[in-house]
Amino acid sequence: MEKSKVTKAILNRLPQYLDLLQKICDSGVSHISATRIASELSFGEVQVRKDLNIVCGKGKPKLGYDPHELKRSIELCLGRHQKAHAVLVGAGKLGKALLDYDEFEKFGVDIAAVFDKNEQSFKLHKSVEVLPMSRFREFCQSNDVRIGIITVGKGSAQEVCDLMVESGIEAIWNFAPCKLSVPENVAFLQENLALSLAYLNNCLLSR
Amino acid sequence: MEKSKVTKAILNRLPQYLDLLQKICDSGVSHISATRIASELSFGEVQVRKDLNIVCGKGKPKLGYDPHELKRSIELCLGRHQKAHAVLVGAGKLGKALLDYDEFEKFGVDIAAVFDKNEQSFKLHKSVEVLPMSRFREFCQSNDVRIGIITVGKGSAQEVCDLMVESGIEAIWNFAPCKLSVPENVAFLQENLALSLAYLNNCLLSR
Repeated sequence: MEKSKVTKAILNRLPQYLDLLQKICDSGVSHISATRIASELSFGEVQVRKDLNIVCGKGKPKLGYDPHELKRSIELCLGRHQKAHAVLVGAGKLGKALLDYDEFEKFGVDIAAVFDKNEQSFKLHKSVEVLPMSRFREFCQSNDVRIGIITVGKGSAQEVCDLMVESGIEAIWNFAPCKLSVPENVAFLQENLALSLAYLNNCLLSR
Repeated sequence: MEKSKVTKAILNRLPQYLDLLQKICDSGVSHISATRIASELSFGEVQVRKDLNIVCGKGKPKLGYDPHELKRSIELCLGRHQKAHAVLVGAGKLGKALLDYDEFEKFGVDIAAVFDKNEQSFKLHKSVEVLPMSRFREFCQSNDVRIGIITVGKGSAQEVCDLMVESGIEAIWNFAPCKLSVPENVAFLQENLALSLAYLNNCLLSR
């Protein structure tokens, strides 16, 4: 698997490949071609060949892929066998909405705890504990937390980000609408929800 | 302006150009070069030339851009002079988090109303009314609503989507994690928040 080539667009398709491969494994079929996968999922054949090549290499000539092997490679790529623990800081509406979002587990990430500076938020939300900031560093270190999600306001986002870096977090996903300074060895993704809306609006303007 | 070429990445940079141009207009400077804009914003010069060319055409040789004219073109591109009205269906945590998000206005979109099937949600949230579904069609038609945001669960997303289309909505942004069937003449964007997390996780896996 050439993981560095796995884009968001490919990741987006992997769960669909996985659902199909599960059915194919259950049916006892020993090989499946890229052509058949493309046709079952209504994807373009060229795209399917490219995706599977990146995730699992080329299939066997004339036979195609062993569905069990392909399924394992996709699961590996999605991190399903090695869940990454994430923590979320900021138990406001957005933080809670993210906790309710069922899709993260599909992609190998589980939110292990939520942190907030406001004591009134310290109650269990679904099955996830909301903890005080004073416990952040110790929690991250003892639970091997690798991903941090920032859903606090602009004013405290940099402070939270710094704490995440100091606590050994390796990847940060920031929802606060502000620039953050992050060391180069930490993966960083700035979320801007308004951009999707801006894009749709621009589609309308250009009609 | 070649609006169809305005990608999300360009839209993301436009507010930064705008902030700089405001300062330049205020300072009374009559022309500014792409080189100077690139240097002030720490952007690559090639990228700045491309962005501005798409939004406003080429500047004057040796002089560069009239900052007032450039500012107007960017505002036009962001729809600031012609705000698009949006409605949101589903006043749960995610819906409310989106209402609290301050960035939409920057991109020319205002959320005119929120709709929910649950009567308990029918109170004012910030300055936006939460209304019953029975008022949806009439509200959209009398307020020239062009954008619909779906933040209901999977189970009712298609029904809400159909109602939006019937009510004349031209662009739909769906947060429900399910495929929706939408007519070709309606712009559609599927949001998958888990993908960003999956991408970060994959960055970690490949280290």
